[in-house]
Amino acid sequence: MTLAIPGVHERPPTLRARRLGLFTQHEPIVLMRTDCHVCRSEGLSPRAQVLLSSGGRQVYATLYQVSGELLAIDEAALSEAAWTLLGVAEGEGIEVRHAPPLASMASVRRRIYGNRLDEPALQAIVGDVAAGRYTDVHLAAFLTATSALPLDDPETLALTKAMVDVGDRLAWASETVLDKHCIGGLPGNRTTPIVVAIVAACGLVIPKTSSRAITSPAGTADTMETLAPVDLDLAAMRRVVEREGGCVAWGGAVRLSPADDVFIGVERVLDVDTEGQLIASVLSKKIAAGSNHVVLDIPVGPTAKVRSEEAGRRLAGRLTSVAAQFGLKTRCIQTDGTQPVGRGIGPALEACDLLAVLQNAPDAPQDLRRRACLLAGAALELGGAAPEDQGLALAEAVLADGRAWAKFQAICEAQGGMRTPPTAALEAPVTAARSGRIIHINNRKIATLAKLAGAPDVKAAGVRLLVRLGDEIASGAPLVTVHADSRGELGYALSYAAANADLIEIEA
Amino acid sequence: MTLAIPGVHERPPTLRARRLGLFTQHEPIVLMRTDCHVCRSEGLSPRAQVLLSSGGRQVYATLYQVSGELLAIDEAALSEAAWTLLGVAEGEGIEVRHAPPLASMASVRRRIYGNRLDEPALQAIVGDVAAGRYTDVHLAAFLTATSALPLDDPETLALTKAMVDVGDRLAWASETVLDKHCIGGLPGNRTTPIVVAIVAACGLVIPKTSSRAITSPAGTADTMETLAPVDLDLAAMRRVVEREGGCVAWGGAVRLSPADDVFIGVERVLDVDTEGQLIASVLSKKIAAGSNHVVLDIPVGPTAKVRSEEAGRRLAGRLTSVAAQFGLKTRCIQTDGTQPVGRGIGPALEACDLLAVLQNAPDAPQDLRRRACLLAGAALELGGAAPEDQGLALAEAVLADGRAWAKFQAICEAQGGMRTPPTAALEAPVTAARSGRIIHINNRKIATLAKLAGAPDVKAAGVRLLVRLGDEIASGAPLVTVHADSRGELGYALSYAAANADLIEIEA
Repeated sequence: MTLAIPGVHERPPTLRARRLGLFTQHEPIVLMRTDCHVCRSEGLSPRAQVLLSSGGRQVYATLYQVSGELLAIDEAALSEAAWTLLGVAEGEGIEVRHAPPLASMASVRRRIYGNRLDEPALQAIVGDVAAGRYTDVHLAAFLTATSALPLDDPETLALTKAMVDVGDRLAWASETVLDKHCIGGLPGNRTTPIVVAIVAACGLVIPKTSSRAITSPAGTADTMETLAPVDLDLAAMRRVVEREGGCVAWGGAVRLSPADDVFIGVERVLDVDTEGQLIASVLSKKIAAGSNHVVLDIPVGPTAKVRSEEAGRRLAGRLTSVAAQFGLKTRCIQTDGTQPVGRGIGPALEACDLLAVLQNAPDAPQDLRRRACLLAGAALELGGAAPEDQGLALAEAVLADGRAWAKFQAICEAQGGMRTPPTAALEAPVTAARSGRIIHINNRKIATLAKLAGAPDVKAAGVRLLVRLGDEIASGAPLVTVHADSRGELGYALSYAAANADLIEIEA
Repeated sequence: MTLAIPGVHERPPTLRARRLGLFTQHEPIVLMRTDCHVCRSEGLSPRAQVLLSSGGRQVYATLYQVSGELLAIDEAALSEAAWTLLGVAEGEGIEVRHAPPLASMASVRRRIYGNRLDEPALQAIVGDVAAGRYTDVHLAAFLTATSALPLDDPETLALTKAMVDVGDRLAWASETVLDKHCIGGLPGNRTTPIVVAIVAACGLVIPKTSSRAITSPAGTADTMETLAPVDLDLAAMRRVVEREGGCVAWGGAVRLSPADDVFIGVERVLDVDTEGQLIASVLSKKIAAGSNHVVLDIPVGPTAKVRSEEAGRRLAGRLTSVAAQFGLKTRCIQTDGTQPVGRGIGPALEACDLLAVLQNAPDAPQDLRRRACLLAGAALELGGAAPEDQGLALAEAVLADGRAWAKFQAICEAQGGMRTPPTAALEAPVTAARSGRIIHINNRKIATLAKLAGAPDVKAAGVRLLVRLGDEIASGAPLVTVHADSRGELGYALSYAAANADLIEIEA
């Protein structure tokens, strides 16, 4: 076909980048004017998927349009997620075109209609997911389809491999590399720094990377950051591990299993979580981290991710067998998932618990101490530093005689210098409305309370639990203390506590 | 539990409404500042689902946050979708709170895990969907789940009923009320106004409501609007039908099956379309419209919604049996889905085809004429105005002798006055690059071409097809003409045609 009308010039679809300061969580969004020439020439309408290009980088984004004066006619305004991914400067040129259709969605549709997915199909899907080409709608379709027809063993293996392949992969000099992971968020369950200290003190290599909080009041990286720098690049991590055998760093400098966080974001909204996806999520991160001996903490309880011991055993079995396919040795430990671990919930408050345990303080939370020793013991056995069934005893000894504390201090120094966790400016108790026995602690609401108080952004903020399940309490006695840096945040948290009497349930 | 710190005042979460002129298709979005007191007190983060309340009305919206000066600290800026739904005035007070959790999502999750859904569960889901409480992620999960485990007959029935119940429902004085529907978009397939004219001319009642285009170059309402007003409220519709027996109005004034458009929006993104959902979609709108005799046009072809005659028969069977449960009589007609119908694609161009057929012009598109008579004939038989197997002949007679044209003119007058469709300012051909035979016409790309030319917003814009499948064509001869009102839009369309040689494929 030939162009039949002369004089029509094709203008390149370039616009000037503008940073809008628009926070959309992870969604890359671009705003353009309805009368922008690019919208007209590309035939773009609101919610179209577009491809933004600049300086050789490409980002997929959702387009919204504005009428009127909010933008100049030749501006493309980017959300923070899009701005960071595209790496442009203010005013720089961006090309905007229709996003090419997602070929891998054909595989997702095949799965919706009941077909199994092979390795190439899963590689293609995970590649597109990691590259940010899937909108939340596409992600929801994939996750729903693999929940409706759960991933079988070959598919779980293939998904795990695809998730490893799409990111960075670390290798360490040591033959034996330890790692640990807790499946399912349990507030305050901050065992990692203690475990790392014990395990490294026994001469094993344990180069731990951890995340910041996504929706919880603290991630391991947030808590550790109140004690030492965690923002280490790969070279710095290697130096620390070379010197001390272990580290507790933020994983942000390396891209390990980048599709995982994308999946997790939508899983949380839908509240679906299937075994195959969970296994791929956990193991892909460990494999990519270069670990080959992994201890998995599986909290079990009616409101935990794993609801029964039976389910826990089944999960453990599948985890172990998929891990073995990658040359990973695993040890799965079922623990109590019915209430928070430790007393502090929030970065600095959890750090205080850690320090108390490591320093053998008499009032250190014993449940945290026990759980950390249990997991560390398993790691010691797995890594060959303790004979079978003697790991727990060795871990406790290393903690009790101060070797773990010495190692922890050394790691903090190696990471850039040990710090004192901050203390909140304000503190207020939430008290019992009646006398009786503590029969239920709502993990999710305790976490919300800590966040309203300011965690994790305000490192000193959060909640300190003063009771555990089964405790007897008198009317008017404090159940928790709320820690905050401002009267406003303290007030928000206390209002929430007042409006949510089922935060902690007392039976008369 | 008691508040232990005095002097903390709870400020009501009220902000001032601001219209942003932000187009997001159907998504209600609200923008607030990160440091806004409501974000702090409610603990709101980006992408949180919030409930906006004002003057007794409530709207669910997704929150994004902005830093800096885009908004005042006490402003809540609404997208157009949110603004329209909430019905506030600039500066009016809006309360913003966390959206309550979606109870009906528990049912969606049950379906994901393989369980059947009963009537109460589907009523709850559809109620939440129609009320705008489901985000696209939730909708994607539901639609994927009912594709992975398709809706069975009881579920299809229950879903249809739920979709009817959640909107308005019309009733007409006549005992026999005719309707028609085409399943699956085929460009140019604008039979409705001709069918309505023929059927009403034969004394049957056919109160047709139709949609505007969502993603196509023209909806029936857009096309009809170039010939007469369509924006009739219910009272006006009743007057027209009372007087002339039929109408072709825009359904926007009445809320028929409001959940349907919400589902369709996400189905399009995912490209999933399952039978149960399709049946519920079609029938819920007809039942809500008060129809009891429905002709269904099922185009069949390799790129149509229905791919084979076998599939078409199966669909027809299920449609008929579900419809019967509601006292609806249906007649399903399989038609050709391999190429566009008629010549014009775009509101005014399609209107020209309609007028040519109604006026028995010698060059009227015969395929459109034939299809309209086929469907009208089925309607006449279904409604008892023609004996079995004589409907087609009667329809053709009514068309040929001018009764249909007279009735159409009368309907237009009753709707507010007949108009002349506009003509585009510019016209340019797209010509054949080689000689040969037309072997493929890409429906989707033809539609895109029409939209780039300006359809449906520019009523005169679009595409006129000059060839059909099987035609012999000489190199350089025109295949289509593009109609546009501006050189810019004409240029965009012609550039697209030049870059998409597979728009119309010619075999040498």
